[in-house]
Amino acid sequence: MSSNKINRVAIFGGTHGNELTGIYLIKKFESLPHLIQRPSFETVTFFANPKAYAIGKRYYETDLNRCFTRQDLENPNLSTYEAQRAKEISRIYGTGGEKQADFVIDLHSTTSNMGLTVILPNLNRFHLELSAYLVSINPEIKILYSITQYEDNPHLDSISEFGCTVEVGAVAQGILDANLFQQTEALIYAILDFVETYNQGIVNLANNILKFYEVTNTIDYPRNESGEIRAMIHPGLQFQDYQPLNAGEPMFLTFLGEDIVYQGESTIYPVFINEAAYYEKGTAMCVTQISEIKLR
Amino acid sequence: MSSNKINRVAIFGGTHGNELTGIYLIKKFESLPHLIQRPSFETVTFFANPKAYAIGKRYYETDLNRCFTRQDLENPNLSTYEAQRAKEISRIYGTGGEKQADFVIDLHSTTSNMGLTVILPNLNRFHLELSAYLVSINPEIKILYSITQYEDNPHLDSISEFGCTVEVGAVAQGILDANLFQQTEALIYAILDFVETYNQGIVNLANNILKFYEVTNTIDYPRNESGEIRAMIHPGLQFQDYQPLNAGEPMFLTFLGEDIVYQGESTIYPVFINEAAYYEKGTAMCVTQISEIKLR
Repeated sequence: MSSNKINRVAIFGGTHGNELTGIYLIKKFESLPHLIQRPSFETVTFFANPKAYAIGKRYYETDLNRCFTRQDLENPNLSTYEAQRAKEISRIYGTGGEKQADFVIDLHSTTSNMGLTVILPNLNRFHLELSAYLVSINPEIKILYSITQYEDNPHLDSISEFGCTVEVGAVAQGILDANLFQQTEALIYAILDFVETYNQGIVNLANNILKFYEVTNTIDYPRNESGEIRAMIHPGLQFQDYQPLNAGEPMFLTFLGEDIVYQGESTIYPVFINEAAYYEKGTAMCVTQISEIKLR
Repeated sequence: MSSNKINRVAIFGGTHGNELTGIYLIKKFESLPHLIQRPSFETVTFFANPKAYAIGKRYYETDLNRCFTRQDLENPNLSTYEAQRAKEISRIYGTGGEKQADFVIDLHSTTSNMGLTVILPNLNRFHLELSAYLVSINPEIKILYSITQYEDNPHLDSISEFGCTVEVGAVAQGILDANLFQQTEALIYAILDFVETYNQGIVNLANNILKFYEVTNTIDYPRNESGEIRAMIHPGLQFQDYQPLNAGEPMFLTFLGEDIVYQGESTIYPVFINEAAYYEKGTAMCVTQISEIKLR
């Protein structure tokens, strides 16, 4: 593990303007800042995309959480609201920034039934130990990692050395779910507690093995020749994120009422099933495999 | 019951652009029109708000389903996209219109757990017998009526003598739920079947008593002095649409974690609990009472 102390944590809410859980959590933290302070570091909050929130949408011009590649951040010709916002966030909180954050937490929600998911930008030792700690506190927490991650990471949590994206659901866009709000709040406190023990050099892991879900690819909706979707997520798969899907089991239901089954050979564990924001991205679900990694 | 035959039924989908169930149902009916044809009348479909659908929102400039008061339809100065769209819909399908519809079905969905709800614009005999028929086929169908309805009805289903709004949920904005899609489809066929028997003069009611839910008022979220909400729907009330709420039972949960209880005296049956589109309308839920009406 890096011996660098974490001096500042930045919590981002409203990176997507219609994901209210994070937005109202940072409002709460702004009015009660002691909740997120810990002895060895400072915690700050930032409302990432207020213009998207104002119009009740994920984004104003483009998806802010795809604006953080090094290439885009260094491109002076990108002038969308979100491109500018990304540059500002990076300038302030990124590595070498005015108020450099050593760890960022980016709060999201999803219409998929992903419970409490922590998405890691990479599998460095700090992130693995953080994940093991979180799972030891709450075994329901899922750890997700994408090996298809772009070489040049476009996500907000890539602006600092350490960070993660918190993804909670199922919750509709534009509403607050009180249970998920409280569970997300508890998860944030657990992350901050881990950072505190890390700074104090006293991390003790209950688990030696970390189980996580590794995204290998995505699956689009079946479409007709015009590109329009011609099937929905099958009722048997709806809300079944992280559950095994075996060859021959139904995956989609066409508008005519016919099943379309999963035709792969190996068992998969789909996530982001029926996420509203991914219809336009051509993603009906992300496919994962379960992986395990030894910590010591 | 009126002795007028129903010659044309118009089914509207996408009155709200992010409610996909109705949009994809009318797409299906447009490609397979025999599904909605019946011997004694014509059925047409209409995609009410394509511009809102294109931007993935409820509306483009203003809520189309509040644009149908007689006063607004006759006001030449109203120039929003939705105001113009309402005038066009009324001119084509309204009473006396080019293709007058004698019955309209307006398809909606909600983030509230309203199952299959039929909202009546008034309690005329036709609507009551239709409702009794639908409930006799599927006792899970709920009938809703608002006595606080405006004198000058702003809803799309007011353009013709007979009509209803179909409201299904819980489903997030921007996604399709296959179960609800199929249940809504079956409900539409049942409505069309009823119109057919009505035209043939052979309506036989299984039930003599119709139970329905009557909206009496709405309740807003608790707010702070700046007008910002300071509480969420209580976890115990979330998804409990149509269930009794008694005095002293929790209604909201503040961001600080404190319960706010229902302080009324009589038992109420809330609906539209935590509907995403109603945050901006200042409505956390609609309050209903159960009513019964004798049909013969």
